Amino acid sequence: MNDFLARRRGLAKNCSHPVLLWAGSRVSRNFAANTYPFRASSHFLYFTGLNLAETVIYLEAGNLILFWDELPESAALWHGDSPTRDQLADQLQAQASYPLAKLAQFTANAATIPLVNPHDRQHQAQILNRPVEFPLVAEDLALAQALIDLRLTQDAAARSEISQAIAVTIRAQQAGMKITQNAKTEAKVRAWMEQVVAAHQFNLAYTSIVTTQGQVLHQEHSPHTLKPGDLLLVDLGAETPGGWAADITRTWPVSGKFSATQREIYEVVLAAQTQAIAAIKPGVEFWEIHRIALQVITEGLFGLGILQGSLRDLLALEIGTTFFPHGIGHLLGLDVHDMEDLGDLAGYGPGRNRSPKPGWRYLRLHRPLQEHMVVTIEPGFYQIPQLLNQARLDPNLGQWINWVVLTKFADVKGIRIEDDVLVTANGAEVLSQGLVKKTDDLESLWL
Amino acid sequence: MNDFLARRRGLAKNCSHPVLLWAGSRVSRNFAANTYPFRASSHFLYFTGLNLAETVIYLEAGNLILFWDELPESAALWHGDSPTRDQLADQLQAQASYPLAKLAQFTANAATIPLVNPHDRQHQAQILNRPVEFPLVAEDLALAQALIDLRLTQDAAARSEISQAIAVTIRAQQAGMKITQNAKTEAKVRAWMEQVVAAHQFNLAYTSIVTTQGQVLHQEHSPHTLKPGDLLLVDLGAETPGGWAADITRTWPVSGKFSATQREIYEVVLAAQTQAIAAIKPGVEFWEIHRIALQVITEGLFGLGILQGSLRDLLALEIGTTFFPHGIGHLLGLDVHDMEDLGDLAGYGPGRNRSPKPGWRYLRLHRPLQEHMVVTIEPGFYQIPQLLNQARLDPNLGQWINWVVLTKFADVKGIRIEDDVLVTANGAEVLSQGLVKKTDDLESLWL
Repeated sequence: MNDFLARRRGLAKNCSHPVLLWAGSRVSRNFAANTYPFRASSHFLYFTGLNLAETVIYLEAGNLILFWDELPESAALWHGDSPTRDQLADQLQAQASYPLAKLAQFTANAATIPLVNPHDRQHQAQILNRPVEFPLVAEDLALAQALIDLRLTQDAAARSEISQAIAVTIRAQQAGMKITQNAKTEAKVRAWMEQVVAAHQFNLAYTSIVTTQGQVLHQEHSPHTLKPGDLLLVDLGAETPGGWAADITRTWPVSGKFSATQREIYEVVLAAQTQAIAAIKPGVEFWEIHRIALQVITEGLFGLGILQGSLRDLLALEIGTTFFPHGIGHLLGLDVHDMEDLGDLAGYGPGRNRSPKPGWRYLRLHRPLQEHMVVTIEPGFYQIPQLLNQARLDPNLGQWINWVVLTKFADVKGIRIEDDVLVTANGAEVLSQGLVKKTDDLESLWL
Repeated sequence: MNDFLARRRGLAKNCSHPVLLWAGSRVSRNFAANTYPFRASSHFLYFTGLNLAETVIYLEAGNLILFWDELPESAALWHGDSPTRDQLADQLQAQASYPLAKLAQFTANAATIPLVNPHDRQHQAQILNRPVEFPLVAEDLALAQALIDLRLTQDAAARSEISQAIAVTIRAQQAGMKITQNAKTEAKVRAWMEQVVAAHQFNLAYTSIVTTQGQVLHQEHSPHTLKPGDLLLVDLGAETPGGWAADITRTWPVSGKFSATQREIYEVVLAAQTQAIAAIKPGVEFWEIHRIALQVITEGLFGLGILQGSLRDLLALEIGTTFFPHGIGHLLGLDVHDMEDLGDLAGYGPGRNRSPKPGWRYLRLHRPLQEHMVVTIEPGFYQIPQLLNQARLDPNLGQWINWVVLTKFADVKGIRIEDDVLVTANGAEVLSQGLVKKTDDLESLWL
């Protein structure tokens, strides 16, 4: 709990406004009582650790006031005992607590952050009697900047939570590798991994990607059967009960044996990741980490004969983005794309904006690295039909790809290798290093 | 697909208005791109079988017009190939299809049903330029009645879908019974069952209840360890990809062996269910099915000495509702509480309203049974502290409970037995009869 107090005091230093943070409300699936599992707003969780709907906190000078309505006595029949408001206030070390109706008395000069659900945002605007939306009004923007200053780097309690999320994710991924030998479908492997997460009473930080069609970057469905020559791309992360995320990707052969072509590309992607991680230290631009990965992938594909011409030209053209079209990684914390609810305010430093260029336009983080940032490093190689067609039809690009050689790599649809990395004082620590990723190590699991 | 055409024609017979039905939009979890799994509105699914967000259909005279915006080409990078509007229109056997912007030209005189998400409802109201909310305006009420007329009974295609949902649910429950012998926590058993559902590429129709604290009727969390004397109450239902639900509850001993007291109460609950099901046939009031279950439970507790005095007085007082406080069941279909998005319009026939009386106030269905209705039959026994305290303090009730005898049944916190039942021409068919429920059969699973 002292961690939460320290965060409240940290906010008070950075933000001169009193702050109202809403947990948010439950959302329904097909009828009102049939709700999705509730997940409080990350900003709210950051200061409370409390995943409770219809709850609001008021933060000022490091103090917290809780607003929450106790459930009616009749609710006990359906939901059992619930805490009293006083008990919740004690748990949060709140200075005071009131029913939600009192909230209107605490709105003067208050800053807030828009919730993700539009209905919730309307409620916030109604209570504050002003717009609560993007672009943010001045006081909300000031609060956003203060929150970003705090949350860009992870304190010890946050690092502990992230490590727990990673530990459970590793167990799930290991279970997935093991069950693949006996599974006939993507869905079976996915369900098997997700039950490991659920059995730990952790949630999923995001919709898992478990697919033999790795070239579809956000393939959220798993409808395919597993065939011996397939690679299975698994991007799955657990979330702790307190809301902290892991985000790990591995790609392994369904048969337990990489083909020669799969192994060659895999080694290129792994080299890109290794060199990207090796370059991480405080002060280095994340942009540079991305550039290194793109360079290693380009060099690797040149070495395999997939790219042809002069390496210097290939790098200048950035043709590697045809095969590695997304960013090298992103912030990781309470959100799997941390603070993406603030748009690019967190990911992009002041005065920085997304580049329109292929490959770069999807880079989610463009800041100098700082000690105690946690980022993902996730290079990939994909044969995406739309991008290959674009390159083929583009006289400036198509000539640099050896289409005959590329045909030999048809069994490599998509490979991604993703780890969660803590920026340390002098370099980087791979928090998810406990999970195998070398080709030989992956193959040895099948022996 | 002919099933969907038949439903569209059925609606045209019952409803003179043209009809607009929205699938609904995705809802986000902690940031916009991190969404919950999408689930289209049940009314939309009933006529299309299509689980696709941001889609609208216009139904008139049995014809269907599809409104949907094709995804931008850039979406292929993230989400792969998506169908064209023409392909979707073919799949739905639509008479025409347009972008969503054309919707405004089809609003004259159109009836609709409010979606569950308030933001979606606002969008509907904006397009139709009138309120879309409860209580319904006249044309929407007419549509609701027409939909209820159709959906109150299940056609052959619906019964087939419900049977598939039941089949997968039975496999999940069987897996749960088996894993209980080796599981240490509620969460493990729950995760194990849910992975069976997910491996079939089915969803969960509702938040599972997997608990040793069965006295909490809607205990959505599973935080407890399993102890040898516990009963585990498992209320879990799968949903087909087309959206059709199952809803089955079993209660089994963690140790594989009912205690004498657990067995005695279980037999009372099972007798209540057996007699309730035996009374089902077209024309019988569902109210009467509830009354029979309440009577059998009251007689059973009287026989065990938990209730005392004259049986006639006990029945008149309805003291059985202290131990069986919820309704005997509800409609089952595309929603686990079918059409509960319409409030009580579907569950309660014209001119009928909820009774304020204990036990009856939670009855979700109050209509005469009809052939091809599917209902749940789910009697239970619970020791709910709040209700027992109320009874103890009530001079009219407390004297009828033998508190000393009740103490001996302390290891029976909650038992529920729930099956899914089809009303047939002459009686009832228990669709979920393939899942064991006799005490001896449950115990034999552990041998």
